[in-house]
Amino acid sequence: MKELFPIVAADVALFTVLEETLRVLLLQRDNEPQAGAWALPGALLKPETDLSLEHTARRALAAKTRVEVPHLEQVAVFSGPGRDPRGYSVGVLFYALLPADQAPAVAGAKAMDVAWSDVAHLKRPIAFDHREMIALATTRLRQKVVQLALPLHLLPAKFTLTQLQSVFETVTGKPLDKSSFRRRLRDEKNLVKLHGELEGGANRPAQLYRAISSFRFEMKS
Amino acid sequence: MKELFPIVAADVALFTVLEETLRVLLLQRDNEPQAGAWALPGALLKPETDLSLEHTARRALAAKTRVEVPHLEQVAVFSGPGRDPRGYSVGVLFYALLPADQAPAVAGAKAMDVAWSDVAHLKRPIAFDHREMIALATTRLRQKVVQLALPLHLLPAKFTLTQLQSVFETVTGKPLDKSSFRRRLRDEKNLVKLHGELEGGANRPAQLYRAISSFRFEMKS
Repeated sequence: MKELFPIVAADVALFTVLEETLRVLLLQRDNEPQAGAWALPGALLKPETDLSLEHTARRALAAKTRVEVPHLEQVAVFSGPGRDPRGYSVGVLFYALLPADQAPAVAGAKAMDVAWSDVAHLKRPIAFDHREMIALATTRLRQKVVQLALPLHLLPAKFTLTQLQSVFETVTGKPLDKSSFRRRLRDEKNLVKLHGELEGGANRPAQLYRAISSFRFEMKS
Repeated sequence: MKELFPIVAADVALFTVLEETLRVLLLQRDNEPQAGAWALPGALLKPETDLSLEHTARRALAAKTRVEVPHLEQVAVFSGPGRDPRGYSVGVLFYALLPADQAPAVAGAKAMDVAWSDVAHLKRPIAFDHREMIALATTRLRQKVVQLALPLHLLPAKFTLTQLQSVFETVTGKPLDKSSFRRRLRDEKNLVKLHGELEGGANRPAQLYRAISSFRFEMKS
């Protein structure tokens, strides 16, 4: 029967920004095929219990990293007879974002070796076609980040404008002019100043902000 | 075994613009389940022969409509136990575009009843969750059309600027100012004027153009 039914799986590119670097979570495979290679967290679809492939993706993240993410989005489907030595496989790729302050806790959540790998210098070797998956998810993330509220999912609940600008710059890889960035934010009604809440040294403490859920910031590319 | 292996299929939302209306190709189902309902062209993945789900999608179009499309793009994956009475199903949705001059030939290419249905007034009833699929594909198409060269896939090889503007307006549903539209096209090096080739009546014949493959026209939304 193996050849007649494809393997169906969900894989997740979970991104964060650490040390001003865009990073993706990789797990070192314990088992064959490709034991020792680094792979995205993923799981096979369980038709008996998974209500959808998004459910499969969330289950994979929870089982392998104990992470629950608010925002999970489909990127693309990878399919073909040569992707996996176990048979014809259909892999649905999702991406998700984790705020930097939650990222260190993920590493080491399981006995399995876990790494937040710089997307520009991935760990080697990468399993299956996951290098291609990461490249596509990164491209999608960069496209989205310039027009949507995605950077907020990478920030802590309260953040400074400098942190907000830094996340934009890290994900897109493009420096932004500080004064024009701030000017554009001035009319953003969904960005809320937290009166009396400051962060940082005694000399130049920085104002903290939070975003309301519908925050949507349009960056000109 | 049926419950343990999902059904995997590709479905295609094939769009055209006819009578200044954005239309999607629907086929009336001959067989159960949902005989008589209107559905997108689709096919089950054949792991023995399909190199990928895009291959499945192209095979479905060729078999059911005799259409071969240059541009086919993934939209999303629909999955779950309740989508299809035959079992847990994973449906990968693609969209494709067909120039208006090729569209009339599609209708009637098979004995099966075929319709180019106005996306705003779809035929009824629609099979499975294909109404949701069409809505999502239409949204994606509208997003893409403002930033990419997609309208060209809806135009004949040679077209007038009035035709180009009309396709933009029909797909996005937004009227455009003629003079600013033309002004923006003036610097578009990938749009080639066909010297001496005109179309239309003796009084006001219109200049014909063609696009080179890398043509990319950015619409401000």
